[in-house]
Amino acid sequence: MTVSIQGNKGSYSHIAAAHMFGSDIELLERNTFPEVFEDLISKRVDYIVVPIENSTHGSVYQNYDNLSAYECEIVGELYLKINFHLIVHPGTKLEDITELYSHPVAINQIKKFSGEHPNITVKEYHDTAGSVEMIKKDSKLTAAAAASRFAAELYGMEVLEENIHENPKNYTRFYVIERKHNAVNVPKSLSGIDNKTTIQFSLGAEAGSLYKTLRSFADRDIALTKIESRPVINTDWEYRFYVDILAGMKEEKLAHALKEVEQYVKELRVLGSYVQGEYVTT
Amino acid sequence: MTVSIQGNKGSYSHIAAAHMFGSDIELLERNTFPEVFEDLISKRVDYIVVPIENSTHGSVYQNYDNLSAYECEIVGELYLKINFHLIVHPGTKLEDITELYSHPVAINQIKKFSGEHPNITVKEYHDTAGSVEMIKKDSKLTAAAAASRFAAELYGMEVLEENIHENPKNYTRFYVIERKHNAVNVPKSLSGIDNKTTIQFSLGAEAGSLYKTLRSFADRDIALTKIESRPVINTDWEYRFYVDILAGMKEEKLAHALKEVEQYVKELRVLGSYVQGEYVTT
Repeated sequence: MTVSIQGNKGSYSHIAAAHMFGSDIELLERNTFPEVFEDLISKRVDYIVVPIENSTHGSVYQNYDNLSAYECEIVGELYLKINFHLIVHPGTKLEDITELYSHPVAINQIKKFSGEHPNITVKEYHDTAGSVEMIKKDSKLTAAAAASRFAAELYGMEVLEENIHENPKNYTRFYVIERKHNAVNVPKSLSGIDNKTTIQFSLGAEAGSLYKTLRSFADRDIALTKIESRPVINTDWEYRFYVDILAGMKEEKLAHALKEVEQYVKELRVLGSYVQGEYVTT
Repeated sequence: MTVSIQGNKGSYSHIAAAHMFGSDIELLERNTFPEVFEDLISKRVDYIVVPIENSTHGSVYQNYDNLSAYECEIVGELYLKINFHLIVHPGTKLEDITELYSHPVAINQIKKFSGEHPNITVKEYHDTAGSVEMIKKDSKLTAAAAASRFAAELYGMEVLEENIHENPKNYTRFYVIERKHNAVNVPKSLSGIDNKTTIQFSLGAEAGSLYKTLRSFADRDIALTKIESRPVINTDWEYRFYVDILAGMKEEKLAHALKEVEQYVKELRVLGSYVQGEYVTT
């Protein structure tokens, strides 16, 4: 099983991939999301795992655009609780630490900890897991990194202090994505019975078309968990909407709702039907 | 009249500000949007002018967050048609040009032009108008910049070729923002009769609450032109929505709709009522 992710071994995308497919996957580590989607389309990998949304920073808008640009389908979902731990060489004590490395986003979320430890110089690094690898490889015995437990284990390092971040509710939602199954045209789930579906459609300026679309679901007691919009390029303010629906494609009520929605929207496309993601801690 | 913008003299934000307030405004040029909002709150300026959305790249999500974080109100709107022109020293001919400077976003939108002129080396600069200023100040007689006509005029330079960009429908929408008028609690428009309103509210996971909210407007034939969502930090997937409404706060039907909406949402806030923006070319 080969999986492509944006980021390095030990990253949160790797954790998500390992949780879905086990730890013996062959991992392709890429710098950008388009490279990851290209890996999938060109059949270099079986699946890709990408973040779609973070509860603090919002949607990964680029990946919504990628979902529309590439012939692919969502086949799985996972929620990662993003925890940052203080990671050091085995035996290093808190009073030994002079430097702390992590990604700028992580640094921003451990400001209370770093404020309470003014003797530790905080330094930016391009990746959280990468900062663990770096202090390991460079034998920086008085350095620490802020990253996941998974990254600590991967590089044989030690978690000296758990959960040094402030925000107790920081989650990233990941999609598992496969090449589109043109033959069947019904998305295939990774396992179990699909109970969640993501669709996209575009809307122009017709008054009330979004309302009518949402009504098609509300009338059938189908709950929506997320609605996102992105501009359609080269139009006068048309938007492409992405909606997460708490129903699987095999449920009759969803089929009826989508049949009705077709009247109100353009370019209706089912991006995938899958099992609602579980919560996994890091 | 003092106005703060993100960017430099001659930038598209400056064009928007000059169109709204005239060219003799005192302009504060800032590097970041939070600095611009701080200028307003600390009363260093009368107004700020910030981009909220581009038809190619999507919302300026940071400014939606800023609208919620700062005590301010939207009092005006403007649509700029973003055109990139080839700007040179007066007298420079196309065959003389060896370098072309502009912002990476602009460079990305003039790829056809640069592909057709392989003898011209394209170089990134941090600002479109700034690239005009730089080739002027440094007397780069064989250099060109891709920027607005306004930037060319501001620095006494010449438009050698018009509209060298590809996308014919590239617009940026700007908001004119003032400190909140707590005394009256009814947003004051810059001029004329308000016919557009922006609201924000947040929604949890209650099924159908967005649908009911939109219904309150649809039932009264009130058209919506934009709906945007952002995460509410430290919640389990609550979202803050921003909705642009084609009705002014003085219109009775909008007052009735908002009264109804209050039942379905949390933190309903009118961010401003203003005159719908006109289209201005650059």
